[in-house]
Amino acid sequence: MIYHRDIRIEFNHCDPAGIVFYPRYLEMTNSVCENFFREVAGYSYAEMMAAHQGTPTVRAEVSYHAPTRLGEVIDWRLSVTRLGTSSIGLRNEAHCGGLLRVTVDLTLVFVGGGPDGDLRPQPWPPAVRDRIAAFAGAG
Amino acid sequence: MIYHRDIRIEFNHCDPAGIVFYPRYLEMTNSVCENFFREVAGYSYAEMMAAHQGTPTVRAEVSYHAPTRLGEVIDWRLSVTRLGTSSIGLRNEAHCGGLLRVTVDLTLVFVGGGPDGDLRPQPWPPAVRDRIAAFAGAG
Amino acid sequence: MIYHRDIRIEFNHCDPAGIVFYPRYLEMTNSVCENFFREVAGYSYAEMMAAHQGTPTVRAEVSYHAPTRLGEVIDWRLSVTRLGTSSIGLRNEAHCGGLLRVTVDLTLVFVGGGPDGDLRPQPWPPAVRDRIAAFAGAG
Amino acid sequence: MIYHRDIRIEFNHCDPAGIVFYPRYLEMTNSVCENFFREVAGYSYAEMMAAHQGTPTVRAEVSYHAPTRLGEVIDWRLSVTRLGTSSIGLRNEAHCGGLLRVTVDLTLVFVGGGPDGDLRPQPWPPAVRDRIAAFAGAG
Repeated sequence: MIYHRDIRIEFNHCDPAGIVFYPRYLEMTNSVCENFFREVAGYSYAEMMAAHQGTPTVRAEVSYHAPTRLGEVIDWRLSVTRLGTSSIGLRNEAHCGGLLRVTVDLTLVFVGGGPDGDLRPQPWPPAVRDRIAAFAGAG
Repeated sequence: MIYHRDIRIEFNHCDPAGIVFYPRYLEMTNSVCENFFREVAGYSYAEMMAAHQGTPTVRAEVSYHAPTRLGEVIDWRLSVTRLGTSSIGLRNEAHCGGLLRVTVDLTLVFVGGGPDGDLRPQPWPPAVRDRIAAFAGAG
Repeated sequence: MIYHRDIRIEFNHCDPAGIVFYPRYLEMTNSVCENFFREVAGYSYAEMMAAHQGTPTVRAEVSYHAPTRLGEVIDWRLSVTRLGTSSIGLRNEAHCGGLLRVTVDLTLVFVGGGPDGDLRPQPWPPAVRDRIAAFAGAG
Repeated sequence: MIYHRDIRIEFNHCDPAGIVFYPRYLEMTNSVCENFFREVAGYSYAEMMAAHQGTPTVRAEVSYHAPTRLGEVIDWRLSVTRLGTSSIGLRNEAHCGGLLRVTVDLTLVFVGGGPDGDLRPQPWPPAVRDRIAAFAGAG
């Protein structure tokens, strides 16, 4: 299945060339993933923080196909490309006006630990994993 | 006395009009204040965080006199306008090419508390207050 | 009348203290104003840019009443406090959980000019001014 | 040769977990590349913009090895991995405390065009190419 999220390109996203400043795409995909975890996986970043857990990004591959301009609305499409014991692969595609603009492949790792301790990878909570697996498996 | 800090205007600061996107001025003055506390007051934000303390901004007044463009270098000038028991007034002026571009007047409050507790205003640590007062009083 | 816009506080808005980093409030109010001009005034920033026009902020006064945390949803409420020949006063209030968190009073000026020329204040286009006046005057 | 640039991790870089918010690494590498073009290649982004040229990023691969915290200073090390007719490969490594924290491999393409026209890849200006080649070839 595909998780959709629209983001309108505003002044704060754009550079002096009038197109999206590319680090802002990563801010957008972080937002898309954050909402995916809250709405689909049922475990928000606020809840993770309170439990001294999180899903840091350990790998990102970004390909830019075409620029996006002020006022355009991106249809971000997130799909699960891999679900490991404590990691996940998430593909984020930015579609707009019938064109693929940017592809962002992310690998996130679920980590946890004590309040002042180091965070270590740990298995997904079963309920979270089940919800993500159901989403990924749905046609 | 005046605390100086140069910031070169880069792509990430600018909007589609090719000038500094105004919320970036506040990011810059936050950076200037952060370095002032580390270098002049002798108490860095990292040290404050570790002690569950901080200096949140409670008031900001920003006046824009002229735009600043990609490639220009701002000479930020910080001065202490008021030093209270647990607060401080900091004026930040952005000078460039002989012109005042932006003035940012900030009021910060020193707060502290327990790790999970609410933060409340508390008096400046005496050594911090003494260093700021010496800086403010120097000709 | 009041123009409303909800913004959920995400990772990208927050600082190491787990609360909104205050320059992000200005990014949010810029977004709220940008959407107000598109939806209410009927003249988007993208259209203004194409016409070598814009609405730079010349004055901002920000008062912080209480912190906002990751996961909270701000109800931004924009009202018109003054409508001049070429300027506008816009009050932005951040409400959340029954509490006013932040107030941002902005003064914007409508400017225009040639593609490479300096931008100068100019009167609001009549249709834009009429729509803003109708909004401001509605009960 | 290696181009070095130090960046101190400040409040604006960090997330609620107290570590660098990963899209900020891309803002930093954009800044490092921007300074590399100004100082080493002898062609600043401001000069490129004025000539309706630029070096958009078309590919980024980011690997996170270890987190970086508020107050740490990153030694960014940029090296040229490939110099094509109109493209360049730039590796950016974030070193801190004897550890490699992040690696960012970027591919940039030199583009140009008319003021309102579409930008197309074009060969590096010879003087720019020569300076980059001399830097890349130096032991």
